[in-house]
Amino acid sequence: MANEKKMVEQITSMEEDFAKWYTDIVKKADLIDYSSVKGCMIIRPYGYAIWELIQQNLDARFKATGVENVYMPMFIPESLLNKEKDHVEGFAPEVAWVTHGGSERLTERMCVRPTSETLFCEHYANIIRSYRDLPKNYNQWCSVVRWEKTTRPFLRSREFLWQEGHTMHATAEEAEARTLQMLNVYADFFEADLGIPVLKGRKTDKEKFAGAEATYTVEALMHDGKALQGGTSHNFGDGFAKAFDIKYLDKDNKIKYAHQTSWGVSTRMIGAIIMTHGDDNGLVLPPAVAPIQVVVVPVQMHKEGVVEAATKVRDEIAAYARVKMDDSDNSPGWKFAEYEMKGVPLRLELGPRDIEQGQCVLVRRDNREKIFCPLDKLAETIPAVLADITKALYEKAAANRANRTWEAHSLEELCEIAANKSGYIKAMWCGDLECELKLKEQADVSSRCMPFGEEPIGDVCVCCGKPAKKLVYWGKAY
Amino acid sequence: MANEKKMVEQITSMEEDFAKWYTDIVKKADLIDYSSVKGCMIIRPYGYAIWELIQQNLDARFKATGVENVYMPMFIPESLLNKEKDHVEGFAPEVAWVTHGGSERLTERMCVRPTSETLFCEHYANIIRSYRDLPKNYNQWCSVVRWEKTTRPFLRSREFLWQEGHTMHATAEEAEARTLQMLNVYADFFEADLGIPVLKGRKTDKEKFAGAEATYTVEALMHDGKALQGGTSHNFGDGFAKAFDIKYLDKDNKIKYAHQTSWGVSTRMIGAIIMTHGDDNGLVLPPAVAPIQVVVVPVQMHKEGVVEAATKVRDEIAAYARVKMDDSDNSPGWKFAEYEMKGVPLRLELGPRDIEQGQCVLVRRDNREKIFCPLDKLAETIPAVLADITKALYEKAAANRANRTWEAHSLEELCEIAANKSGYIKAMWCGDLECELKLKEQADVSSRCMPFGEEPIGDVCVCCGKPAKKLVYWGKAY
Repeated sequence: MANEKKMVEQITSMEEDFAKWYTDIVKKADLIDYSSVKGCMIIRPYGYAIWELIQQNLDARFKATGVENVYMPMFIPESLLNKEKDHVEGFAPEVAWVTHGGSERLTERMCVRPTSETLFCEHYANIIRSYRDLPKNYNQWCSVVRWEKTTRPFLRSREFLWQEGHTMHATAEEAEARTLQMLNVYADFFEADLGIPVLKGRKTDKEKFAGAEATYTVEALMHDGKALQGGTSHNFGDGFAKAFDIKYLDKDNKIKYAHQTSWGVSTRMIGAIIMTHGDDNGLVLPPAVAPIQVVVVPVQMHKEGVVEAATKVRDEIAAYARVKMDDSDNSPGWKFAEYEMKGVPLRLELGPRDIEQGQCVLVRRDNREKIFCPLDKLAETIPAVLADITKALYEKAAANRANRTWEAHSLEELCEIAANKSGYIKAMWCGDLECELKLKEQADVSSRCMPFGEEPIGDVCVCCGKPAKKLVYWGKAY
Repeated sequence: MANEKKMVEQITSMEEDFAKWYTDIVKKADLIDYSSVKGCMIIRPYGYAIWELIQQNLDARFKATGVENVYMPMFIPESLLNKEKDHVEGFAPEVAWVTHGGSERLTERMCVRPTSETLFCEHYANIIRSYRDLPKNYNQWCSVVRWEKTTRPFLRSREFLWQEGHTMHATAEEAEARTLQMLNVYADFFEADLGIPVLKGRKTDKEKFAGAEATYTVEALMHDGKALQGGTSHNFGDGFAKAFDIKYLDKDNKIKYAHQTSWGVSTRMIGAIIMTHGDDNGLVLPPAVAPIQVVVVPVQMHKEGVVEAATKVRDEIAAYARVKMDDSDNSPGWKFAEYEMKGVPLRLELGPRDIEQGQCVLVRRDNREKIFCPLDKLAETIPAVLADITKALYEKAAANRANRTWEAHSLEELCEIAANKSGYIKAMWCGDLECELKLKEQADVSSRCMPFGEEPIGDVCVCCGKPAKKLVYWGKAY
């Protein structure tokens, strides 16, 4: 029990210090560890298992839309990075440079990829000749490096794991359709599997990807009212195609430039899960990405038949859920706290009296509800409860977002909300960069996105008062 | 048909020029492409799909033995790399150095990992305290960089994909058992799934891993008689544990050093598959790692009902095999050549007459055997034929190895065999480095391994004539 107390004591409450609460969870739930490599993290088995489940789920979704995986070199020669002007300006300040191979200085230095548009483009220029070669729907799972000054586990680290899809199309329409298709794949994964409601929309020019024509985003609102960009999907038009000379002979016998997209999500997603669903007892994992969905805790283990009965239950559950039995020497109380910390969605307690009555107790991680369940009904009950947990997580997060979404109709009002409340601020915008910068300066908010399918809430810019057609969600962001 | 001829013409025969034949296959079967990043390769969708199947298969085998996946940073600070003397001497000459982050020079340069022992050790030193924390069985899938002068796709490239397992144990015995357990996992995968017979044995001190106490290997013999190290498993003893201060409190209340192993296989394996099974028509893939196991080719596609019948057959096969139907405009002849080049294990031809008779023709890639199969027997026949192909590939490769394994009882005899024949040369060795170096100099062979469970073939060293107890397989290697 000493252990249990110690563990619980060590978690800062989220109300008290949200940033510290976050850092406590990533450490105490054994998600990451630090090393002597500054700004990088070690992803520990439990954290990596979450990432593997995210990967498997998304990879299957990608492949269902015709995406194929490839692997590109991790290095980019400086001259290749320099080929597209906006792109190099966006990334060159934050790349790691390799200057030596063994004891020899390289004739041309290379950066470790911060993203791989340039490599994909060079390859596409080699392999695309005719309309028959299109579309190309490639993706890669890899790590990338961006030399950030301030880092936080999962949210911003110098190296992170991600996937980057890069596709090539015959027409602008097809590229736009693919851009939105992948945005919807992300949105559906967030909402249906992670239980995280997202706002879908378009980024302003200031916030779009370096080199893109349009960037779309799925934005999630964290428990503390700050926004997190969950995934982005970019339409590049034919900008890179022109810089890299990616042309094809069309059916009409004309040479045309190809149209391009890219889209990515990263280990940041794990940060979003923590900050959307977590509580003062630790992590709360949505069942779809929980390495352990059900933990079986035998109670009064020394009594005859308890461990045997728990083992039988564990083996049965293994047919339809990721299950673990903990029959270690630690006390039940320690185990309860430990698996709550690790965010296991469902705990199954089984003691001598339960066995006598042919039942067990299921305890939900999200709301601590206790469910007495006959042992012969587990196969129907557990999957249903897991599905219900995802739904409940979604609803709770959606309610948090609704409670933290405000409207502002004047600069004064916007500044007042930004200063005293947390969350999204909806306001009209004229489209000028100057106003966007002014809001950043005066209210410390950035534009999160121009949402799809929402009605304007006025007709003048919240900042300058000029006519405005664009509704923007503003906020502070991770 | 123009395409077909062109494609066939472009393959060099393996008898004529084995190296060129190899390069032709990796390009023509769409496994890789080159880029402006010298010494690195682009792994294209078809090549990467093979790697994904290898990963899935091995990952499941690892996890069945209790292995957990993690992710370590890709960078290693120079001071960390320097901590174990033998290790740094082995790797420092061939690493890529990062010296700048953005526009700033780093206070300490970092290398891109050539392997991650040092990072794992630093982490283990942080998390191992007690015997309760042992064993730790960690693995990571990642890419590593070694600055090679001469490179060849899959066989030797500056960046390659691999897995590296790193485990920590309470006792020397347990570490040795894990080292051999993982070697056996590799051996079984090579033999049962890839159809590649391997020689299991121990490396001489000269050939062992930098910092290891003992290195074990699975060696495969390529079609041209050169050997390829397929995978290695190392027992580190407590050498790194001492350098990194990895200690634990044992049950007996004494502080002890932990014992360590590491083991890895890489995308080299794809090179082994090509050079073991390939022929002058291209790649020959073992079914376990074939992205397409069965290709359905409708014949006389313009005839009514052919494409429909082929689609139905394709959909049925999809329940138990990875299947593709090619109903493109290309001629059947072109398709036959194309899927032979790509090494698809089984081709299914279906034309109007077949449909009338309720049958189809199955053509094996490995021996071109034609099998007439009733359409209602495909579900039994195809899995059986695929299993038989793996067996036949294994037997053919085993026969090649048997035909290319020689014995030498004197230095003269060994030099003569090395000069005029290809393959393994079995010979006794006294254990002295001098003799090993002399054989390299005079016969251009290296020690491949000291095989497990083989009887000595003499009692004096083939080189110096002194008493010798060690049987060694010598050969030229990739």
